[in-house]
Amino acid sequence: MISGATDFLQMENKWEHEIISYTNLYKNELLNNILPFWLKNSKDEKNGGYFTCLDRQGNVFDEDKFMWLQGRELWCFSYMYNSVEARDEWLNMALHGASFMEKYGRDEEGNWYFSVTKDGKPLVQPYNIFSDCFACMGFAALNKATGEEKYKKIALDTFHNILKRKDNWKGKYNKQIAETRPLKNFSLPMILCNLALELEHIIGKERVFEFIPLVVNEVMNNFYDEESGLILENVSPEGKFVDCFEGRLLNPGHAIEAMWFIMDLGVRMNDEQLIQKATDIMLHTLEYSWDNEFGGIFYFMDVKGNLPQQLEWDQKLWWVHVEALVALAKSYTLTKNKKCAKWFVKVHEYTWKHFKDNEYGEWFGYLNRRGEVLLSLKGGKWKGCFHIPRSLYQVWKILEKI
Amino acid sequence: MISGATDFLQMENKWEHEIISYTNLYKNELLNNILPFWLKNSKDEKNGGYFTCLDRQGNVFDEDKFMWLQGRELWCFSYMYNSVEARDEWLNMALHGASFMEKYGRDEEGNWYFSVTKDGKPLVQPYNIFSDCFACMGFAALNKATGEEKYKKIALDTFHNILKRKDNWKGKYNKQIAETRPLKNFSLPMILCNLALELEHIIGKERVFEFIPLVVNEVMNNFYDEESGLILENVSPEGKFVDCFEGRLLNPGHAIEAMWFIMDLGVRMNDEQLIQKATDIMLHTLEYSWDNEFGGIFYFMDVKGNLPQQLEWDQKLWWVHVEALVALAKSYTLTKNKKCAKWFVKVHEYTWKHFKDNEYGEWFGYLNRRGEVLLSLKGGKWKGCFHIPRSLYQVWKILEKI
Repeated sequence: MISGATDFLQMENKWEHEIISYTNLYKNELLNNILPFWLKNSKDEKNGGYFTCLDRQGNVFDEDKFMWLQGRELWCFSYMYNSVEARDEWLNMALHGASFMEKYGRDEEGNWYFSVTKDGKPLVQPYNIFSDCFACMGFAALNKATGEEKYKKIALDTFHNILKRKDNWKGKYNKQIAETRPLKNFSLPMILCNLALELEHIIGKERVFEFIPLVVNEVMNNFYDEESGLILENVSPEGKFVDCFEGRLLNPGHAIEAMWFIMDLGVRMNDEQLIQKATDIMLHTLEYSWDNEFGGIFYFMDVKGNLPQQLEWDQKLWWVHVEALVALAKSYTLTKNKKCAKWFVKVHEYTWKHFKDNEYGEWFGYLNRRGEVLLSLKGGKWKGCFHIPRSLYQVWKILEKI
Repeated sequence: MISGATDFLQMENKWEHEIISYTNLYKNELLNNILPFWLKNSKDEKNGGYFTCLDRQGNVFDEDKFMWLQGRELWCFSYMYNSVEARDEWLNMALHGASFMEKYGRDEEGNWYFSVTKDGKPLVQPYNIFSDCFACMGFAALNKATGEEKYKKIALDTFHNILKRKDNWKGKYNKQIAETRPLKNFSLPMILCNLALELEHIIGKERVFEFIPLVVNEVMNNFYDEESGLILENVSPEGKFVDCFEGRLLNPGHAIEAMWFIMDLGVRMNDEQLIQKATDIMLHTLEYSWDNEFGGIFYFMDVKGNLPQQLEWDQKLWWVHVEALVALAKSYTLTKNKKCAKWFVKVHEYTWKHFKDNEYGEWFGYLNRRGEVLLSLKGGKWKGCFHIPRSLYQVWKILEKI
């Protein structure tokens, strides 16, 4: 029995030891692979803004500019400038994107377009409020980097606009007939959890502390499904399960990412119970969505075990895996739950083996179920300079503190 | 040399012989597997209409009703009644769907909803004109079966509504800013090629003969891209290539299916040149989109060889393959081009091996690149009682006449 206990302790130390040994891996990958790749390949010197459709080698294969990804890259370089080191090349890259966004990004009412041409002509209407969320995050971070009032104003105006639109953000583009089957979607409350803290230097601690309980309640009570122990993507306005395609949908990556946002809010509010609950939900989601045959986390599932309608359901996506690494590293340091450490090692091994491109730099985004590359692009309409650098930074800093 | 020529002739006869031997296979599959499966499993006895979300065994896993698929199943049973044999069970099945559609299918302006609940409450707005196209086809076929004026009126009203909406059918749901980059999409002209002949008994020969040259010109001149020899999914209003994600998109299944619609129009108008051109485009599309590694036809491609944005691009879908069989059988009998016969055998072997479910009846719809079942459903939000029975019927009748 004593020997068993010693083994157990040694085992635990082994996991912790292994994890700490990764610190420099994450740091180097961020500073010497990912950020240089985007600095080198994504800047549109002629028209301003960022190219994000980059092939395996980093060549631009499409020149349209997606506001969602412009805002994310602006955020990324501002954030690295604020958090890692005040490097001029990072600030200049941020300013380069901000200037394009400021000029061409919004319609007359201040809504952010979904996409524009390389020279800024609007292509797709602001039907999608996430463009606004990432513009808001980006300009808030740039305001922190520069102290410039005009960036603060853009962030704040956009934030107010998001709050104004939040209950009916699809507006006239909404095709659902809400009278028959009202549903609300998880994405916005999830992002607001993160946005609240990103805006603290602008909206102030008091406002953030008013805001946090509202979004936490929405995520942890309304979208959390007691019966399955999982987070649903769509629920009724009262937070109940609705038995239809949308109501049964699970997006495990979303849920896992949201749980580390919640852990951050738990830390900010000193709420250990909240951190514990977020850890439990995250671990349960990971166990539920791990592909025991080929490894990796499924993209979409159905909470009743039915067939999901998404044809890409079994694919392995970069953001799902790197966000899981953040959630696991964070929950491990906060709870010392050894399950988190074990899972971290498992997800780490899968992720670095399958996503990292050892030949041309940066990481692949889309793998098939077997973990083979499905699309070799480094950036596109949905993959940009965001999840990978943010996660590498987060994990690096968490491991450094263990 | 003489011996070579004999071999060649024997070879050709071998292909033809092999193809003819399939006749009963197609007939039996239609009459003893596919139609009985839908008769048994898709009828909603309580509320009327058809369930289309059927799992591998035929159990209903979702009860929403998608107008697109209601219209297609109505068409299918009416068509079989008109074309194969006047069986009461087929007519009753058609009437069962028609009555539900008539009661609950349309909004106040006569547009067909995208979906309704099992008991007919509207769920998703008529943002999609293809619901209207298939309702029109369905009621036209039911009018032919019954002679009932009221079905003719529904078909005709819907047809006029489609023509009225055709240049801006997305209406307020359109998110594209056309001033910046106007594009038109291939789907509607493609379906109109087929719809024209389906409505001949209602709108008359003269109207059909006015209509045909317009849709043929649209498909064979505007959407056909001279440079690649392929059909594009989206072009400029003048029919030119536009270098963006939508403009570069190829949907080989769409192009191949459209080519047999064009062959039908060629037959109707006695235009051998048109049949020849459609055959050439179809064969070229097939050669371009065949997966030489794992077999089967890719779902989406990019005309410039870039990475498509569709994550499901490499999947093998039922409708693509069965429509290719129709196009190949048809073009072979019309042109006697031996390439069509060879390709027919190749696609036939792939299709029957991978899609047919020998255990629970009907066919799978969604395979991954390797031809393994990705989703085991027999029907869903997009797969219903349409492509497989229509194709089996078409191939059966074509082979019977060789």
